[in-house]
Amino acid sequence: MEFHFLGTGAGVPSLIRNVSSLAVRFLQEKGTQWLFDCGEATQHQLMRSAISPSRIDRVFITHLHGDHIYGLPGFLGTRSFQGALTPLTIYGPSGIESFIKAALAVSGTSLRYELHIVEVHEELVIDTDFAQVSVLPLKHTIDSFAYRIQENNKPGVLQVEKLKALQIPPGPIYQRLKLGEMVTLEDGRVLNGENFIGPAQQGRVVVIAGDTQPIANMVEFCHEADLLIHEATFRTGNEDSAHEFGHSTIADAAELAKAAQVKQLILTHISSRYSAEEEELQSEAIQAFEQSWVARDLSVYHLDTIQP
Amino acid sequence: MEFHFLGTGAGVPSLIRNVSSLAVRFLQEKGTQWLFDCGEATQHQLMRSAISPSRIDRVFITHLHGDHIYGLPGFLGTRSFQGALTPLTIYGPSGIESFIKAALAVSGTSLRYELHIVEVHEELVIDTDFAQVSVLPLKHTIDSFAYRIQENNKPGVLQVEKLKALQIPPGPIYQRLKLGEMVTLEDGRVLNGENFIGPAQQGRVVVIAGDTQPIANMVEFCHEADLLIHEATFRTGNEDSAHEFGHSTIADAAELAKAAQVKQLILTHISSRYSAEEEELQSEAIQAFEQSWVARDLSVYHLDTIQP
Ligand SMILES: [Zn+2]
Ligand SMILES: [Zn+2]
Repeated sequence: MEFHFLGTGAGVPSLIRNVSSLAVRFLQEKGTQWLFDCGEATQHQLMRSAISPSRIDRVFITHLHGDHIYGLPGFLGTRSFQGALTPLTIYGPSGIESFIKAALAVSGTSLRYELHIVEVHEELVIDTDFAQVSVLPLKHTIDSFAYRIQENNKPGVLQVEKLKALQIPPGPIYQRLKLGEMVTLEDGRVLNGENFIGPAQQGRVVVIAGDTQPIANMVEFCHEADLLIHEATFRTGNEDSAHEFGHSTIADAAELAKAAQVKQLILTHISSRYSAEEEELQSEAIQAFEQSWVARDLSVYHLDTIQP
Repeated sequence: MEFHFLGTGAGVPSLIRNVSSLAVRFLQEKGTQWLFDCGEATQHQLMRSAISPSRIDRVFITHLHGDHIYGLPGFLGTRSFQGALTPLTIYGPSGIESFIKAALAVSGTSLRYELHIVEVHEELVIDTDFAQVSVLPLKHTIDSFAYRIQENNKPGVLQVEKLKALQIPPGPIYQRLKLGEMVTLEDGRVLNGENFIGPAQQGRVVVIAGDTQPIANMVEFCHEADLLIHEATFRTGNEDSAHEFGHSTIADAAELAKAAQVKQLILTHISSRYSAEEEELQSEAIQAFEQSWVARDLSVYHLDTIQP
């Protein structure tokens, strides 16, 4: 999985951090691309990235503040203008549909592709070909949600070397063994497929959270996630202001990461007041949680081998 | 008057031309700033210009296509976030108010300044301290308008040298003469103020047009304008396609400039299909109308001494 940070700022754009947007590319799933939040000028940032509007087939909105949604109408129109014909589904809090429809209607924009809009709530589980996405309400000044991507487990790999050692030549039998079936060979030997399949590959878990102050429910929701992407609008020590405005500090996000035993933490949604303190932010994050990074615009992170 | 071209592209942003927006700064009028159209990422372009959202007090929208309005909600929010408290008035076609209100409401954005929204129509005349703005309906795929800024004429300057030659010392008498009054001096001489005032300064005229195919009414509306800013979505020779989509070519705009005897012509709203043909566009424009320029993003033009 690749994470393309398109906008890592908070509230208003600055010259170094645009407002929120994150694209996820699933390399092992035909390059499927999803978008999380779509602040103004997300389509402009996409022009500078390897992600293409026409390849994105799902957009997840964490909450309806302008810095997370004002890029949606332009993104939708440009996706159509570029010739995309494949359907697009947008998930977001109640109100997202009326906003999108008002913007498209007033501008006389008709899309060439099917647009589905799903308003999310706590019980929603989104099943896709290769993963399940679930939703947790957060605590912000308006409804805000975290999304948890749970990849499906993958069956173990057929242990071909082991079969070759038993002088069993490749052929249709391999397919049946791979499915775990009992197979009788021409020479009378009976093989149990289960014995020739490696361990199942555990699906990875990634949580992408919207704006929020710390809440207890997130510890369970993020439990042992491979990656947590969380806001850190304020630096450590400003917890009072942060929580007053429904936000978190670097320390808040790090504490959650520890309590939930997540493997890696990426901090984003950084206030522009810190634009001269990039190095301090990074070292503050690492001190609070070793496997952490502060995202920058147009950085790409690879899950498994996370490096900025 | 300064013209800051923030976005000079058509329909969708490209890496060199953003979607439509133009700021006008009235240097002789306390630096008053107006905005014409506000495509997505206009606030981003403003960060790279000398124009400040908080100084802008009027926004004129030519038509409601997304590439001319999708930057409005973010611009309005950021103007408030930056602390602007002065009122803002937005002029635009019917529908502009419902779009703005829907975007602000869904995102829970409350502005700290007064926002006035005026829906424009053919008879509307906007009177400001120093200019009158009138409106002409154009011909596009949706309602589209041109705005004509007519600066007020300014009274002539008092000819101080002439008064000094007559041995009349500066004092309150100068004020009365400047108003054109008859003044009797202590020595009995009678002066007519009218004789000591230079010629009135003619207010300048600038027309800024929205997307349109050529229409006859524009010739009168632009008559002898000092500057016409007009779209040229297509290059000369593509008149059929241009008009089919409610647009103009370079030749169309040049013909209007000639017929209306305007002094200078700036072409904007250039299709991204021409991104490798910048020089050809410029020479095609000059051949069609000598005093013409093709605008580029972040260029600033000064009326009187127009140079890119
Ligand atoms: Zn935010
Ligand atoms: Zn346009």
